Amino acid sequence: MQSNLKSVLDTKKAAVEGALGIYSSCSGDGPAEIHEAMGYSLFSNGKRIRPILALLTSEAVGGSEEETLPAACAMEMIHTASLILDDLPCMDNASYRRGIETCHRKFGESTAILASMALLNKAYRVLAEWDASGKKGERLKLQVLKEIPELVGPAGIIGGQIADLASEGKALDFEALEYIHSRKTGSLFIGSIRIGAIIGGASEQELRAATNFAKNLGLAFQIQDDILDETGDLQSMGKEGKMDKRRSNFVSFCGVDKASEIVRELTGHAVLSLQIFGDRARWLKEAAYYLAVRDH
Amino acid sequence: MQSNLKSVLDTKKAAVEGALGIYSSCSGDGPAEIHEAMGYSLFSNGKRIRPILALLTSEAVGGSEEETLPAACAMEMIHTASLILDDLPCMDNASYRRGIETCHRKFGESTAILASMALLNKAYRVLAEWDASGKKGERLKLQVLKEIPELVGPAGIIGGQIADLASEGKALDFEALEYIHSRKTGSLFIGSIRIGAIIGGASEQELRAATNFAKNLGLAFQIQDDILDETGDLQSMGKEGKMDKRRSNFVSFCGVDKASEIVRELTGHAVLSLQIFGDRARWLKEAAYYLAVRDH
Repeated sequence: MQSNLKSVLDTKKAAVEGALGIYSSCSGDGPAEIHEAMGYSLFSNGKRIRPILALLTSEAVGGSEEETLPAACAMEMIHTASLILDDLPCMDNASYRRGIETCHRKFGESTAILASMALLNKAYRVLAEWDASGKKGERLKLQVLKEIPELVGPAGIIGGQIADLASEGKALDFEALEYIHSRKTGSLFIGSIRIGAIIGGASEQELRAATNFAKNLGLAFQIQDDILDETGDLQSMGKEGKMDKRRSNFVSFCGVDKASEIVRELTGHAVLSLQIFGDRARWLKEAAYYLAVRDH
Repeated sequence: MQSNLKSVLDTKKAAVEGALGIYSSCSGDGPAEIHEAMGYSLFSNGKRIRPILALLTSEAVGGSEEETLPAACAMEMIHTASLILDDLPCMDNASYRRGIETCHRKFGESTAILASMALLNKAYRVLAEWDASGKKGERLKLQVLKEIPELVGPAGIIGGQIADLASEGKALDFEALEYIHSRKTGSLFIGSIRIGAIIGGASEQELRAATNFAKNLGLAFQIQDDILDETGDLQSMGKEGKMDKRRSNFVSFCGVDKASEIVRELTGHAVLSLQIFGDRARWLKEAAYYLAVRDH
């Protein structure tokens, strides 16, 4: 990764960590255990890709980091909530995530499930309490609040997870895999990028371009994940490698080489969508290339 | 129950069922299984107490049924979401609820957990998409959206459930029981009644009175639940009786007679809070008396 991009991503990541810390510290009411479990998963060395994409997209259309941070953090909370559920014994039954024990291994199943629920709820809280007075105020806030439920619900992450679990032991074709992953992973990529664009004040045309960018990037990211799952190990991945082998994935469908070619192609399409933003999307573009060649 | 009150409650219940049906039918995207599981639990013969209380409270301060229904339905969705989780093997491990198999017994654990998450998410969707243009429009909508996260999160239902699970095998005093149940049951009573009041256009003073009514009624309702759990059976309760005996409850703490006395006292306090509404709160008052003497 170029040192310039690295410093941009590090700065954005630090801003996200800081904001997440503030949201977590000012909600101390209720049993300590639930806050511990939420914090354990939320601050477990996540890459913060989704909120960073929200920030970079907002800036590409003229928005500021400050006004985008609350919604960006909400997306990370939803992401973390979905990971906690994915790892449960009745789902992927995973023991490690991001290099540490999964939430249910650390806090027990019931607390993990409630922590996941609480993180989704917290995301809505952050959005409801967000002071969006800056630009278009209440209307902007409601517009963002309307984007979220679709991404999370049966047509989004939750539906993707149901389809993913149902696919166990079945040989899936590219279309079926894409159905699952456009929902499971794609939804939050699309959501983060669209919300960044909306908060930044994107025109209709810019919002369409950003959505197109997000669709291609989300799928590229997921296929790269499958490639790493085939070739990686616990140490570099932070989770058990090859776990996804018990289910069809893009690599089992077409092999590592073909999958890598598709990743490059999708990333190319994604970056092409950014043309209308010109130089303002420079970091977004570089981040897309970086995500497509990442090794963890 | 007086036949007049019965007809009021039946009419309100029918309005809630109708609205819930509309919200469920227009969201067909995603795997059929998740919609089936959500619908199975949402339409499993619930008494609809919370949304009915929201409607009656709204009307007591001059609001209409039509403008209150969406938020009232959202409260029922949140209630159903919390019941699905309570019943899970890692929580209460219940086999029956409302006279039929629990969601996880019918659809499996992973689908039940995702259906619960989807119902919470759907509640936020209904509120975000609610057309509150009638009275104060967007401001009213945001005010209602701000009420919910606190009721659901660590200080509300989720925190109450954590404390409840942690209490297993411990002898609790009245204060500890009240801590658990003011969160587990109380939160949604308070939320439904406050939201009804807010949508109906309550003054600050009226909102305080409604909140006070809700706190006392919620606790009375829970204690009555414990009494029924001691004296009821599967047939009249629709769930396994005495299941809560493995945990302390109000009856195990002070016996059926004393518990019944407390229910009457709390109900009296609740109804007193309604004085400032005068005759407009007639049905709310009658409903409170009815809830306190219910036998299922």
